[in-house]
Amino acid sequence: MIQPIPCYDIFELALNGSQEVNPFTDVSISARFEHRNRVLEPEGFYDGDDRYIIRLMPDEEGEWRYVTTSNMPELDGISGSFECVAARPGVHGPVRVANTYHFAYSDGRRHFSFGTTCYGWVNQPPELQEQTLKTLASAPFNKIRMCVFPKDYTYNKNEPPFYPFEQAEEGWDFTRFNIPFWRNFEQRVGQLAELGIEADIILFHPYDRWGFARMGAETDDHYLRYTIARLAAYRNVWWSLANEYDVNSSKTPSDWERIFRLIKTRDPHQHLRSIHNWIQLDDHHTRSFYDFSRPWVTHCSIQHAHTDLTAEWRLLYRKPVVIDEACYEGNIPDGWGNISAQEMVHRFWEAAVRGGYCGHGETYLDPHDILWWSKGGVLKGGSPARIAFLRAVLEAMPEGWIDPLDLVSNSCQSSGGIPGRYILHYFGRHQPSSVTFKLPEGEFCAEILDTWEMTITPVGGTFRDHLIIPLPGKPYLAVRIMKTSRTG
Amino acid sequence: MIQPIPCYDIFELALNGSQEVNPFTDVSISARFEHRNRVLEPEGFYDGDDRYIIRLMPDEEGEWRYVTTSNMPELDGISGSFECVAARPGVHGPVRVANTYHFAYSDGRRHFSFGTTCYGWVNQPPELQEQTLKTLASAPFNKIRMCVFPKDYTYNKNEPPFYPFEQAEEGWDFTRFNIPFWRNFEQRVGQLAELGIEADIILFHPYDRWGFARMGAETDDHYLRYTIARLAAYRNVWWSLANEYDVNSSKTPSDWERIFRLIKTRDPHQHLRSIHNWIQLDDHHTRSFYDFSRPWVTHCSIQHAHTDLTAEWRLLYRKPVVIDEACYEGNIPDGWGNISAQEMVHRFWEAAVRGGYCGHGETYLDPHDILWWSKGGVLKGGSPARIAFLRAVLEAMPEGWIDPLDLVSNSCQSSGGIPGRYILHYFGRHQPSSVTFKLPEGEFCAEILDTWEMTITPVGGTFRDHLIIPLPGKPYLAVRIMKTSRTG
Repeated sequence: MIQPIPCYDIFELALNGSQEVNPFTDVSISARFEHRNRVLEPEGFYDGDDRYIIRLMPDEEGEWRYVTTSNMPELDGISGSFECVAARPGVHGPVRVANTYHFAYSDGRRHFSFGTTCYGWVNQPPELQEQTLKTLASAPFNKIRMCVFPKDYTYNKNEPPFYPFEQAEEGWDFTRFNIPFWRNFEQRVGQLAELGIEADIILFHPYDRWGFARMGAETDDHYLRYTIARLAAYRNVWWSLANEYDVNSSKTPSDWERIFRLIKTRDPHQHLRSIHNWIQLDDHHTRSFYDFSRPWVTHCSIQHAHTDLTAEWRLLYRKPVVIDEACYEGNIPDGWGNISAQEMVHRFWEAAVRGGYCGHGETYLDPHDILWWSKGGVLKGGSPARIAFLRAVLEAMPEGWIDPLDLVSNSCQSSGGIPGRYILHYFGRHQPSSVTFKLPEGEFCAEILDTWEMTITPVGGTFRDHLIIPLPGKPYLAVRIMKTSRTG
Repeated sequence: MIQPIPCYDIFELALNGSQEVNPFTDVSISARFEHRNRVLEPEGFYDGDDRYIIRLMPDEEGEWRYVTTSNMPELDGISGSFECVAARPGVHGPVRVANTYHFAYSDGRRHFSFGTTCYGWVNQPPELQEQTLKTLASAPFNKIRMCVFPKDYTYNKNEPPFYPFEQAEEGWDFTRFNIPFWRNFEQRVGQLAELGIEADIILFHPYDRWGFARMGAETDDHYLRYTIARLAAYRNVWWSLANEYDVNSSKTPSDWERIFRLIKTRDPHQHLRSIHNWIQLDDHHTRSFYDFSRPWVTHCSIQHAHTDLTAEWRLLYRKPVVIDEACYEGNIPDGWGNISAQEMVHRFWEAAVRGGYCGHGETYLDPHDILWWSKGGVLKGGSPARIAFLRAVLEAMPEGWIDPLDLVSNSCQSSGGIPGRYILHYFGRHQPSSVTFKLPEGEFCAEILDTWEMTITPVGGTFRDHLIIPLPGKPYLAVRIMKTSRTG
């Protein structure tokens, strides 16, 4: 009797098989899982030591039955079943799109995306990986952008401890995956899951000196199938096809379409899928984004400094807007990595009140070139505490999500909330001496939020019809207005 | 013998004529002025007290001859001449477009536009008008946006001392201009000229309770001809067809075209012509601007909060970009009138290093509702001193203008200057610990400018090939780099 599997955890079927052939290229193995009227068919993968593994993340309680298919007789036709039981406390399943523009876990709980970026953290020495996890445990982030392949770039010249492929006499044997690399990678993904952090896995990126950015379609696909087979059963996986796809000159638009199609076809759990752009930060044309309205893209993954365009992007793509990169807090010479903490926080709020989700990154110079954005380590900046404040504000809102509202005339369109019930208005660089809201039906209370000082000051009393709030005349304030009465 | 007229001053021919008819509608009077091979034909106007006046601003030294034409025998066929002599010191003539994207006075001197806005200052009590002039005398502004018609709006509910038309038993006699209004108006324009300030005269605006925004085409044209006849000889006039033309529902696009055509035809001095938009501040589409590329528009007159779009607008319209309204420094509830001083200054710099010209306005609440933006008075804000600093920086640059340069990689495109000779780079909200420039041929020196603290700190030494400048890691800095060697 197999032990019951809690919902959204991983069921793993491990089988022994011979290694006389190349187990990565010559062995096909998959399983057909059935639960009531559902069928999921994950591929398996070779994990070294004569061991083949098939993974599934059961997402409904009850009995799941399976039978394997393989071109190797000893792996074929193996059947069995297991019981899926209630999820462990704090486990909510994969994040999905909810209400067109937002995210929720599979069990319905809201997910307000608060991402950060550590491109190469799994390709650093083990102690540094451990330190990054420790930092993340008390940071306000619930998503992290991370590359599979190591990064070659300024401040990123070290070799990783492992490579994803085995080394050949010259270069790489792209037909053989390097098991220690993948065991470490999936261990980190699993540790993130336990911290409640989504792993936004970047499958390709252009900053490469090893050849991983130009492996060719056949090797790309082989790599993608292996990655999906190993990782798709982790509930916290998001697929990011690329960082700065438009910098990678070795892939064409039809390559990206093929890759999207492969992931959509092969991932039994249908994790979120998007692709991140480069383009000039000050270019306001959206023409250089990947067309997020295409049906295989689940959400926007945008690099852009103008987070106040969030509402436009929502209208344009009709999908959740995640601005993963709106410049990073830091002090490096590059324009994308040296905005102030205040500006980073400002961009989070600009996106939030328009119903979008800004992402964080940090690039302070370091004597050992350990910059959070690429290697992890510790956070040095001023923005995370304020991002935690914003996250707490959003998570305390009544059931629903922030969508743009138009309640204040001449407001520069920065009211968001739930129609009739909840208003979050952000003033940004504006410093009005007072603000007037027309209220929906019912009774409301209000508070003044200082987004930088992280204070919440109640405005005394309750209000009907309209509300005039005197303000201290400084920038970076917000106002929160909530309905106090259950009925109008 | 008529006294010689200094170049760019006003020659005025005053003639007596009877008033038996309506002198505004029934008398036509103009003059043909000849200077060498040039002919200018201004219309005259009735100035009350049986006096008809024809004005001309001679713009070349030498003899100017004239002869009048009128349907009134006593005003017809009067001829004469005058001598135009060298301009008085400090008088440089009307501002023209120079080098596609910039401005210069008629005598060739550069004009870096530093505008402010006092929509209704000439429609306030005389003492307040005097105070405004006194403020302007020591302010950093060399252009002021000002309406002919009084303004009806929040904080603008008072009646003006005079109206432009005579009152009828009910409403207005649109066939008769009210002379005291016009004498005051042109006196103010003349006083601005003496202060070196361009009068950006707004001919129509929508914020009206008197009926001046919906007079009909015939009255509009009559008013325009009178305005041009009275004011075109003032060297500092710019014609702004409207404030927020797209809010005025009583005028169609073809009305605006007719008005442009009339001004272009009737103004013998061909002053600058543009038209100001409303649209949403956060709307990044340019579709709602008037199409500034039309041949009768001399420059862009833009309302928009994103002054970092300046380079795009230059490319789009191929004309000087003046962002007259990028929100105002202040604390009123309206989003367009409550940005911080620092933000106002930031927007000036954002435009300047991209080769454009931001405008100022101030809207601090006042117990007597005297807000600079509409009534003038005194300046209370923190931005004018910093705007003066920027103006001094620009006026100290070598002969030429700022055009966008692309010298720093990942710079967010905010280098401007003169190719090969001069670089002005603004970091805005970025705070790099250092910046690297590739230098053109020759030897260069550099300074760090703190745009808010108004300090200039030299970077020691001279540089060739490239230049690395350590920076203090705070926002709102700029760097100025100048060629020290005359030859490469």
